[in-house]
Amino acid sequence: MAVRYELIKECKDTGARVGKLHTPHGVIETPIFMPVGTQATVKSLTPEDVKRTGAQIILSNTYHLYIRPGTRVMEKAGGLHKFMNWDKPILTDSGGYQVFSLGDLRQIKEEGVTFRSHLDGSKHFIGPEEAMYIQNVLGSDIMMAFDECAPYPAEYDYTKKSMERTLRWAKRCKDAHKNTDKQALFGIVQGGMYQDLREISAKETVAMDFPGYAIGGLSVGEPKPLMYEVLDYTLPHLPREKARYLMGVGSIDALFEGVERGVDMFDCVLQTRIARNGTAMTSTGKVVIKNAKYEEDFSPLDAECDCYCCQNFSKAYLRHLIKANEILGLRLLSEHNLRFTLKTMENIRKAIMEDSFVEYKKEFFKKYIY
Amino acid sequence: MAVRYELIKECKDTGARVGKLHTPHGVIETPIFMPVGTQATVKSLTPEDVKRTGAQIILSNTYHLYIRPGTRVMEKAGGLHKFMNWDKPILTDSGGYQVFSLGDLRQIKEEGVTFRSHLDGSKHFIGPEEAMYIQNVLGSDIMMAFDECAPYPAEYDYTKKSMERTLRWAKRCKDAHKNTDKQALFGIVQGGMYQDLREISAKETVAMDFPGYAIGGLSVGEPKPLMYEVLDYTLPHLPREKARYLMGVGSIDALFEGVERGVDMFDCVLQTRIARNGTAMTSTGKVVIKNAKYEEDFSPLDAECDCYCCQNFSKAYLRHLIKANEILGLRLLSEHNLRFTLKTMENIRKAIMEDSFVEYKKEFFKKYIY
Ligand SMILES: [Zn+2]
Ligand SMILES: [Zn+2]
Repeated sequence: MAVRYELIKECKDTGARVGKLHTPHGVIETPIFMPVGTQATVKSLTPEDVKRTGAQIILSNTYHLYIRPGTRVMEKAGGLHKFMNWDKPILTDSGGYQVFSLGDLRQIKEEGVTFRSHLDGSKHFIGPEEAMYIQNVLGSDIMMAFDECAPYPAEYDYTKKSMERTLRWAKRCKDAHKNTDKQALFGIVQGGMYQDLREISAKETVAMDFPGYAIGGLSVGEPKPLMYEVLDYTLPHLPREKARYLMGVGSIDALFEGVERGVDMFDCVLQTRIARNGTAMTSTGKVVIKNAKYEEDFSPLDAECDCYCCQNFSKAYLRHLIKANEILGLRLLSEHNLRFTLKTMENIRKAIMEDSFVEYKKEFFKKYIY
Repeated sequence: MAVRYELIKECKDTGARVGKLHTPHGVIETPIFMPVGTQATVKSLTPEDVKRTGAQIILSNTYHLYIRPGTRVMEKAGGLHKFMNWDKPILTDSGGYQVFSLGDLRQIKEEGVTFRSHLDGSKHFIGPEEAMYIQNVLGSDIMMAFDECAPYPAEYDYTKKSMERTLRWAKRCKDAHKNTDKQALFGIVQGGMYQDLREISAKETVAMDFPGYAIGGLSVGEPKPLMYEVLDYTLPHLPREKARYLMGVGSIDALFEGVERGVDMFDCVLQTRIARNGTAMTSTGKVVIKNAKYEEDFSPLDAECDCYCCQNFSKAYLRHLIKANEILGLRLLSEHNLRFTLKTMENIRKAIMEDSFVEYKKEFFKKYIY
């Protein structure tokens, strides 16, 4: 088995837990946040930069890599790890989400999805078997089943049919996955915001016995309390002895709420996306660095942060870089935002181990204004 | 005296020479290429990245820093070294070139130049005294006199008047420069493509006794043979015991030609600018990385290069990054181009020391196709 979850410690007050995920490229301490490297690069950062943020695993996007540079190049490169020179674990999504959200003129059938490339309009088909083939070529440690992520809001009937098709696709993915000793395939629970659909999806997906389970279809525009409600009634159906991954979620508050309910893995583009707009996540909340009040502020972005940016540069300098559209500005903010998030995950793991998760969360949000 | 040139070795066959430039922030081995950090950052790179390219000194632009973040911020920051966290030597230009090329609606008078900011249209005045004041605030190790760089082509009469005014401005710069123990002021020789004007400018500027001399007004659109001709008749008028700086020149062939004629310092935006277009300078010549032939080329950009990019990534990966508009692509090419240039300068210094500069140049251009 390529990937194995080891439960280390459970919080006595909440569902939070510390574990270890053993993968072919090393052990990941959970709960963990995974920086996103959509196009085989975490935007603006080298693998070394990403490592010094404390990242243990990154996520990359199958759809994007399939479109460019393409499966043939990835195969000749010897897979994604070699191509991008990243020697730690990688998780790839299935491409399903992007096929539905980025592919133009898509046609969904039982076999899979026909769509046109968002780059050049060329016609493509991806179904469960293709998604497995591409991810086998990429060689990610953790692959995701090909699914449909229903939009929000979505009618009950549509969501039900979509969830049922996702179950059939999950079975086909499992059958098509050829490299089980080196790559683990995770199943994905769908079912929108409907409790009965989520429960069916969870039970049926778990019945297929995957080495890990994701909760998809959240953080798609719904209010956060609704997302937490879905987690409340979905997570109890996922087995204690397997890793649980909440897809596409990475805001600081949602990380705490997810951990509290028993989530082990998160990913989000938020940290690097807001950096490109000049926004930083700090221990006192969001900092919009272009703000005039930082013009002559020569203190670091976050006095508590141990990242390269905070150790070497001032808010005034960062503000200058962002205002002058200098790449170094978004690069430094990206590194800081990732470090801030990953350091927070470290603190969360530490707190769970010390039976103080609830207190740590309370202390954190006393300072963090959002 | 803030800066002192020490002549170490002269080539027996050409004007090439090896020296040491002693500055308040360390010793620079010459001949040297200076990466350009226009807006207080060498584009896309951290100070650590710049250092690992072998850079010993960088250049920054007074006009840009005067416009943004402005002199007040730079003063409160404690100068440019602290602001951008660069602890090695810095050379600042005088702002003259940019005032003439970027400033809108400029009015040139004997006192100086009135212009409008290229950013917001606000009205400003910079003359010799202002250029000295701003550079004193920036705290660069080497400051440049406020000059006019005549365009190419330019009439004899215009060039003569401009050159004479530059001489008067040089005198005023020398009088206005207040921080002579920590910052050296270099004079600039102008005179366009006219031998008699260049000779007058050189003699008069040298008569003012600066700690170093620049040749300005070249690489402004003239053919390269004409530039070399100007160097041929100008450089003999600059004293052997002072550093000589050829402004705005950095193409590989021009670096060799300049060194051969006795130039000690060069700067150019070329290395980082072409990187942003996906072009690399390598030991076999220019590589346009977007070219289809690199799609499945998993060899390094330059097998002879010891830079971070060449040690860790393939042409196929770089091509993918550049085609996907990923910042990491231009960042890696920038670092490579700077390292390639600085390594070539190292090789040049070594060759001069070993009395083999002429042979080294010949060998270099056997492989380097441009
Ligand atoms: Zn930081
Ligand atoms: Zn290189």
